Amino acid sequence: MEKTGVAIVGMGTVGAGVARLLLEHGDRTARHAGRTLWLNHAVVRDLKKPRGVELPEGVLTDDLQRVIDDESVSVVVQLIGGIEPAKSIMLRLLESGKDVVTANKALLAQHGPELFDRARELGRSIAFEASVAGGIPIVANISQCLSANQIQSLRGILNGTCNFIVSKMDAEGASYKATLGEAQKLGYAEADPGMDVDGTDATQKLAILSHLAFGARVDWSEIPRRGIGRLKSVDFRYATHLGYRIKLIALAKLTDEGLVLDVSPMLVKVGKPLAEVRDNYNAVSVVGDAVGPVFFQGQGAGQMPTASAVVADLIDTAVGRTAITFRTLELWSEGRDRAGMAPRGSLVSRYYLRFDVQDVPKVLSQIAGALGKNGISIGSVYQHDADLSDEGIVPVVIVTKETTQASVGAALAELASVEAIDSVAEQLKILD
Amino acid sequence: MEKTGVAIVGMGTVGAGVARLLLEHGDRTARHAGRTLWLNHAVVRDLKKPRGVELPEGVLTDDLQRVIDDESVSVVVQLIGGIEPAKSIMLRLLESGKDVVTANKALLAQHGPELFDRARELGRSIAFEASVAGGIPIVANISQCLSANQIQSLRGILNGTCNFIVSKMDAEGASYKATLGEAQKLGYAEADPGMDVDGTDATQKLAILSHLAFGARVDWSEIPRRGIGRLKSVDFRYATHLGYRIKLIALAKLTDEGLVLDVSPMLVKVGKPLAEVRDNYNAVSVVGDAVGPVFFQGQGAGQMPTASAVVADLIDTAVGRTAITFRTLELWSEGRDRAGMAPRGSLVSRYYLRFDVQDVPKVLSQIAGALGKNGISIGSVYQHDADLSDEGIVPVVIVTKETTQASVGAALAELASVEAIDSVAEQLKILD
Repeated sequence: MEKTGVAIVGMGTVGAGVARLLLEHGDRTARHAGRTLWLNHAVVRDLKKPRGVELPEGVLTDDLQRVIDDESVSVVVQLIGGIEPAKSIMLRLLESGKDVVTANKALLAQHGPELFDRARELGRSIAFEASVAGGIPIVANISQCLSANQIQSLRGILNGTCNFIVSKMDAEGASYKATLGEAQKLGYAEADPGMDVDGTDATQKLAILSHLAFGARVDWSEIPRRGIGRLKSVDFRYATHLGYRIKLIALAKLTDEGLVLDVSPMLVKVGKPLAEVRDNYNAVSVVGDAVGPVFFQGQGAGQMPTASAVVADLIDTAVGRTAITFRTLELWSEGRDRAGMAPRGSLVSRYYLRFDVQDVPKVLSQIAGALGKNGISIGSVYQHDADLSDEGIVPVVIVTKETTQASVGAALAELASVEAIDSVAEQLKILD
Repeated sequence: MEKTGVAIVGMGTVGAGVARLLLEHGDRTARHAGRTLWLNHAVVRDLKKPRGVELPEGVLTDDLQRVIDDESVSVVVQLIGGIEPAKSIMLRLLESGKDVVTANKALLAQHGPELFDRARELGRSIAFEASVAGGIPIVANISQCLSANQIQSLRGILNGTCNFIVSKMDAEGASYKATLGEAQKLGYAEADPGMDVDGTDATQKLAILSHLAFGARVDWSEIPRRGIGRLKSVDFRYATHLGYRIKLIALAKLTDEGLVLDVSPMLVKVGKPLAEVRDNYNAVSVVGDAVGPVFFQGQGAGQMPTASAVVADLIDTAVGRTAITFRTLELWSEGRDRAGMAPRGSLVSRYYLRFDVQDVPKVLSQIAGALGKNGISIGSVYQHDADLSDEGIVPVVIVTKETTQASVGAALAELASVEAIDSVAEQLKILD
């Protein structure tokens, strides 16, 4: 049987999982690839660190040059995070004639265009299924399986840490802080969860998916984003009462004004597939103009789910499918038609607004006035005296009819100066 | 831009949808395929029948030979149902050097091995994404995207007509007959719904998926199957009470004894993704040993969802991905390792049993005795006097602990002769 030499650069959790699949299940990759994927090298910085997988003698090395020099290695799995040295190493691998498989979303979200152009110049490919939504094969599904469609929208739960936290806050009524602590204890959140809970991770993934689905060449840092850190348990209670769940949603939607991108906690109607995604699961709902809605759910992270995506890419690259996709799709290339971006604040949706107020009757008319002045119709108002706090402050919740982010922003700015409104406490989009 | 000639044989609903995508959205296929897919011929039996799509002059023909003779046509979409003449036409197309894209599940479930072997001999390929679950790209996901996994189980809602009917029976408490009538009126069920409601359609799809996921070369007609025609509204009521929904499930599961296949109505726990699949949607839940559970949901039929799958196959075939997959996967070939079948009746699950009885106290002990004798433990018993009918017959529902189909069959056979048991009215597996 034909043999394809493989190297892994970076042997963290996922790298060890990939090594396990290659070493312990070679029959399987042989059956699907029609050839053996042979692990020649595993490159690490620290040779002494335990890796949780037994490597054949001579495979472990701290010398990347051995991979570069090994002509029997045609594809390299690069599993080091961050921008540098990941970027330089990827360029070096491509320039030495290797195809690359990666899970590094930050690198692709930031330098995808440059790396993809360079790979194409060199006649090489970059596969990156594992960079978005872990075990869910969303990259292949958007770029191949749904290729007969104009994708119209994409709604994703793309960060397992956030979904674990909001699911728990919803189910248990606990505070953000307490729930984060529990998530950290259970290993669902990092010691420093910043990039997860502030929405950065989901936004970088959305940037990659938006490119695939819409040809958008967008800088991830320009996508409006809000994390989950300011969510209060009171809003989960109101959401439940209204028949919704709060989820961190990464949204991309093609509108008449162009492509709208947004990452923020949103209200999702109970019973819709995205509302039912629990714990640390990821999910993506894609609407194509021919296929209609298609929904994907699975583990978005973790050693073996991510390794599953990496090895699928390895097989695709070894048999030549990746090269074809990479060439025909013109990923991130200048030549491709792409969707223009809609002006900021133009996303149309219903809104959930909570105000903490002191004198309800008086304030309600002021709120209604400010909303009306900005063309926002009120769908419903909820106010329960039972919610009165010690200080006489009471939450008033308003669900608006469809409006734009810009209009909501203008109305809330006006209301910020009203004395009897203690605070414009929360504003969340309602997913349609 | 390079041009690939395409022909469609059979211009029913789906054929017209494929023609629309090719003619009206040529830019899209060009963007994803890096070439133009050019519709040269559309072959029909009756040239006068309206097709719902405007074809360029000279495209419509009733002469298959024109396709055979046209060397610029390298791939043919074959959309005629049934076994013959579909099979002969497919062989003729393959032998004249054309790759084939098809949606004909009955043909593949029955003659897949022969057709695939012949295609391979001829150096041609057969693509069949549209044959299972319409718009859900489950064929590509199992054969490519999850290729790093040993699939452990597969649970599908594969027939939209059945799911529409059981969802409505569940929601409205209506009878099977009334609901079928409504489904027919709304176009969700054919005038002759036999192959849908008796489970044939789902079983043929399961046979195809089982081959992909487990290498099973199984005759679909040997898979145990039960349709939805005997379901009673009383069982939907009990299921709801117990926290379940009744769904027609196509199940494939790798056990220590081999592969178990089964198509029948089963109880699915509310909150599980499969339980929440409504209306005419299809869904598949796949468990892989690396990736864990992955869930897919979408439209399982209809003109444009099915056309979406066909055109994705067309693009894959035109760019060369299908040829690679077809070669490396050894689909249906003799050479491939395959899972052995478990003995019939060996599937382990919990059971929902309903007995219609006359003298509850006396009969309960007989039922418990027969179950116990066959090693079946009782999980819970439900009997409400309020359910007493005019004739003094009362339903008794028993939920068993895990047991085999064979044990349940033996116990029920013993109870069939007990006079006070009016009938062993229903037995349904509970999906784990």
